Amino acid sequence: MENNMHLFQGTAFSSKSPKETQILKDHLFLVNDNGMIEQIVAPQDTNYQTLLDAYQGKNNFHPLAGGQYFVPGFIDLHVHAPQWAQSGTALDIPLYDWLNTYTFPLESKFSDLRFAEKVYGDVVSTLIANGTTTALYFATVHKEASLLLAEICAKKGQRGLVGKVVMDDPEQNPAYYRDLDTRTALLDTEEFIVAVQALAQSTKQGVYPVVTPRFIPSCTDEALKGLGELAAKYDTYVQSHCSESDWAHGYVRDRFQKNDAFALHDFGLLRDKSVMAHCNFLDDHDADLFAETGTAVAHCPVSNAYFANSVIPIAHFHNKGVEIGLGSDISGGFSPSLFDNIRQAVISSRMLEDGVNPSLPAHERGVPDSRITIDEAFYLATAGGGESLSLPIGRIQANYAWDVQVIDTNVPSSKLPIYDANEDLHDIFQKIMYLSRPENIREVWIQGEKVHSR
Amino acid sequence: MENNMHLFQGTAFSSKSPKETQILKDHLFLVNDNGMIEQIVAPQDTNYQTLLDAYQGKNNFHPLAGGQYFVPGFIDLHVHAPQWAQSGTALDIPLYDWLNTYTFPLESKFSDLRFAEKVYGDVVSTLIANGTTTALYFATVHKEASLLLAEICAKKGQRGLVGKVVMDDPEQNPAYYRDLDTRTALLDTEEFIVAVQALAQSTKQGVYPVVTPRFIPSCTDEALKGLGELAAKYDTYVQSHCSESDWAHGYVRDRFQKNDAFALHDFGLLRDKSVMAHCNFLDDHDADLFAETGTAVAHCPVSNAYFANSVIPIAHFHNKGVEIGLGSDISGGFSPSLFDNIRQAVISSRMLEDGVNPSLPAHERGVPDSRITIDEAFYLATAGGGESLSLPIGRIQANYAWDVQVIDTNVPSSKLPIYDANEDLHDIFQKIMYLSRPENIREVWIQGEKVHSR
Ligand SMILES: [Zn+2]
Ligand SMILES: [Zn+2]
Repeated sequence: MENNMHLFQGTAFSSKSPKETQILKDHLFLVNDNGMIEQIVAPQDTNYQTLLDAYQGKNNFHPLAGGQYFVPGFIDLHVHAPQWAQSGTALDIPLYDWLNTYTFPLESKFSDLRFAEKVYGDVVSTLIANGTTTALYFATVHKEASLLLAEICAKKGQRGLVGKVVMDDPEQNPAYYRDLDTRTALLDTEEFIVAVQALAQSTKQGVYPVVTPRFIPSCTDEALKGLGELAAKYDTYVQSHCSESDWAHGYVRDRFQKNDAFALHDFGLLRDKSVMAHCNFLDDHDADLFAETGTAVAHCPVSNAYFANSVIPIAHFHNKGVEIGLGSDISGGFSPSLFDNIRQAVISSRMLEDGVNPSLPAHERGVPDSRITIDEAFYLATAGGGESLSLPIGRIQANYAWDVQVIDTNVPSSKLPIYDANEDLHDIFQKIMYLSRPENIREVWIQGEKVHSR
Repeated sequence: MENNMHLFQGTAFSSKSPKETQILKDHLFLVNDNGMIEQIVAPQDTNYQTLLDAYQGKNNFHPLAGGQYFVPGFIDLHVHAPQWAQSGTALDIPLYDWLNTYTFPLESKFSDLRFAEKVYGDVVSTLIANGTTTALYFATVHKEASLLLAEICAKKGQRGLVGKVVMDDPEQNPAYYRDLDTRTALLDTEEFIVAVQALAQSTKQGVYPVVTPRFIPSCTDEALKGLGELAAKYDTYVQSHCSESDWAHGYVRDRFQKNDAFALHDFGLLRDKSVMAHCNFLDDHDADLFAETGTAVAHCPVSNAYFANSVIPIAHFHNKGVEIGLGSDISGGFSPSLFDNIRQAVISSRMLEDGVNPSLPAHERGVPDSRITIDEAFYLATAGGGESLSLPIGRIQANYAWDVQVIDTNVPSSKLPIYDANEDLHDIFQKIMYLSRPENIREVWIQGEKVHSR
C-alpha cells in the first residue's frame, strides 16, 4: 500500500478562513494513489516519526529543501484561452470596440485546429508554470477546437473546465464569428458536453464541460433558455459575464428591464455550479440571489481596471455570503499569473476604500471598509476558487486534492529578501505572495502528479 | 579606434515623446569607450554596410538574436535601499504606524555594516536584474552605511544616486533612530557629499550624493535650511517626500500654513536637481512651482495604493509641464521591478479616470482625461526619469549613455505570446511592457559595460 502513496514533508500555507491563513510548520502530507491528501501529520503527532521512518530514503518521499514552502495551486476562474495570443495588447479601448476590433477577429482564427493547438498548448503550459492547477476556460464558438483545449488540459495534467462559447444572435455578432444559428449553437454545445464527459472518464485530475453563453448581449433568448436546460440536463458548470461594465449593465437593463443576475436566473443559468465573471455592478438584490443560488463571482482585478469602469466591492459581497474566486481574464487582463491578480486585488480594494481623486476631501473620496488583506486575496485564489467550483481543491487539508506549488525563496536569480533565519512565517508568507516570480515556482503538482518542474 | 568601440545590431524601442514610442528597426548602435552612443545607423543609411563589414565577426560586435529587442534601462527615482529587507510585508497599516512599527526599527539596524553590506548588495543586484540601470536611493541616517551603498553601486556598475537620510527632530523621531543633533546631521551630510564626490572620480557610470531630508515632519527648520545650503554649495541632487498622504499633507499645512512644495522651496530644496516622491496632493500652484524650478515628481504607483490615499493625476501634471519619472518606492511598494510599476501606473490612471465606486453614476465616478497609455508609462520609467535627473540617460539616442536591457521574447520558460512572424512591432512592444519577467531580461548594460547576463 505504501508504494502507491507519496509522503511530502515541509511547511505549508493554506486558508483556514477568508481572513486567516493557516501555517502548517514542518508537517507531513500523505497523498494516496488517487492524488488526494489522506492525512496531515504535525511534528507533535504520535505517528509522525513512524511515518517518516517508513518513507525516508524512498522514491515516494519528498522533503522540501530549506527556504521552500508548499502553497495550494491556484484556481483561475476566468480565462479566455484563445486570447493568450493577444495578451498585453489593445488595452486602451472600451469593451465593445475591443471585442469587435481585436478579439472577435482573433477568436475566429480558432477554426484552424493547428493554430488552436499552438496557442492552447502554450496557454495551458504558461498557466501551469504560473502555479495555476485548475482553470475555468472560455474557448471559442468552434466545437472541435474547444474539445481540443479540453484534450490539451487532460494531457498536460491540468484540471480544466472548458466551455464552447455560444454567441448566436446575428444582430449582435459579426457574420464571420458566431454560431450558425440557435439550433446549431445548442446542438454543438450538447455534443461538446457529451464529448468532454467521455474524455473525463480517462482523466485523473478531472476535465469538465461548461455551458458558456458569452454574455447576454451575444445571445438570443432562445439560446439562453436552451443553455439553461442543457446545464440542468447534464448537471454541468455554467459560466458567463455578468454586470461587467456600464455599457454591458445598461444593455441588459434596456433589454430585460432587470439586472443581469435576474435575467440569467430566469434562463436557469444561476446554479450552484455557475461562475459569473466580473459582476462589478451587482446590486444587493443581485448579490443575495447569487448567495441563494450558490452562484460564484470570478473577480478579475487586473482586467477590471481596463474594462469594468469601477472596482467590485469584494469585502461587501463576501460579507453577504457570496462565493468569490479570482480570474486572470486573459486577455482583458494581461497577466497569466494569479500572483499578479492577488496583488492587484489588494491594491484595487485599497483604492476603493481610500478613493482616487486627491482634490476631494478624504471623507468623500472612497468607500469605507472596502479593503481586503493579502490573506483574503490568497483565499480568493485558492480556497475561494475551490468553493466556487464545489470541488475539494484550493486547500492543503485532508480529503482535498494534492494540488500544490513548491515555492523556493532561495532561487539565486530571484531570492526573496529573507535575512532572519527565524523570520516570522506569516511575514515569509506575505513575501511569497508579493514577490514570487514564475522562477520561484519550482514544482507544480496536480492530483498527486508532478506536472511542472524547473 | 574601432577596438575601443562596440557595435550593437537589432531593433530598439525608445521614447520619442511622452506619448510616442520610436521603433528603430534593425539599426546599428555604435558605442564609444566612454559608454556613450556615438551614432545610430538605419539600414537605409549609406554607412550601414561599411560599419557592419568593419565589425562583423569581431568580439566587439553584438548582434541580437531573433526575438530579442533593446529597451532603455529603467530609472528608478525612489528606492529605500534598506527597506528591501521588509519588502512585501506590513502593507496593511497607515503610513505613520508603518514608519514607527516596522520601518524605523529596521533602518536602525544599518548601523551594522555587515548587515548593510548584505542587504545593499542584494537590492542593487536585484534592481539590476530587473532592468534598473539608474537608481535614486534613500539609505539611512548612518553616514558609513550610506557610503557603503554608494560603493556597492560603483562596484556593481549601477548608476547610483545616494542620500544619507536626515531626520534630526527629537520630537518626531525615536531616540533609537535619528541624527544625534542638527549640527551632526549637517556635518555628516557634508562629509558624505565629499566622500561620494571623491568616489565618483573613479566610477565610470557615475555615482552622486543626494541631499536627503526624509520629509518635513522628520526635520527641524534649521536642518532643512542647512540642507538647502549644502545642496547649493555642492550643487547636489535633492530628494524628499512631498504631499504624499492626507496625514503628511495636513501635518505640513499645520506647521507652515502652506503646502509642502512652498515650504520646501523656502528652504532652497526645490532645484533643477530635485526629485520629490509621491506628490499626490500637489495643487496647481504647487505643480507650477515644480515646473518653474525644474523639480521632478517620482511617481510611485504601487506604493501609492497603500499609503497615499489617492491617485496622483499624472496626465494633468504632465500637461502643466512638470517633469515626472517612476519610482518603485521599495518597500512602500513591494516590487523591485519598474515593469510592475509601469503596469500599475497605467492601471491606476484608468482607475482615476473611471473612478472606483460602482454605486455612483458613471459621470460622477472618476476624473475625465486622466488615463495614460502604456507608452506614457514606459516614458516615465525611461526618458522621463532621465529628464528628471538632467542626465543623458533613458533614451536610445546619440549622445546618450548605452544603458540598455536586452529583452528576449523567446526564452522557453517565459515565452511571450507572439505567433505572427510579421507581428506589428508596436504590439510586440506592448507585450514586452505587459508580460516581461526578470527571466526575459537576458543582459543589462550600463554606460557601455555589461553588468548582468543570464
Ligand atoms: Zn471574460
Ligand atoms: Zn519613500
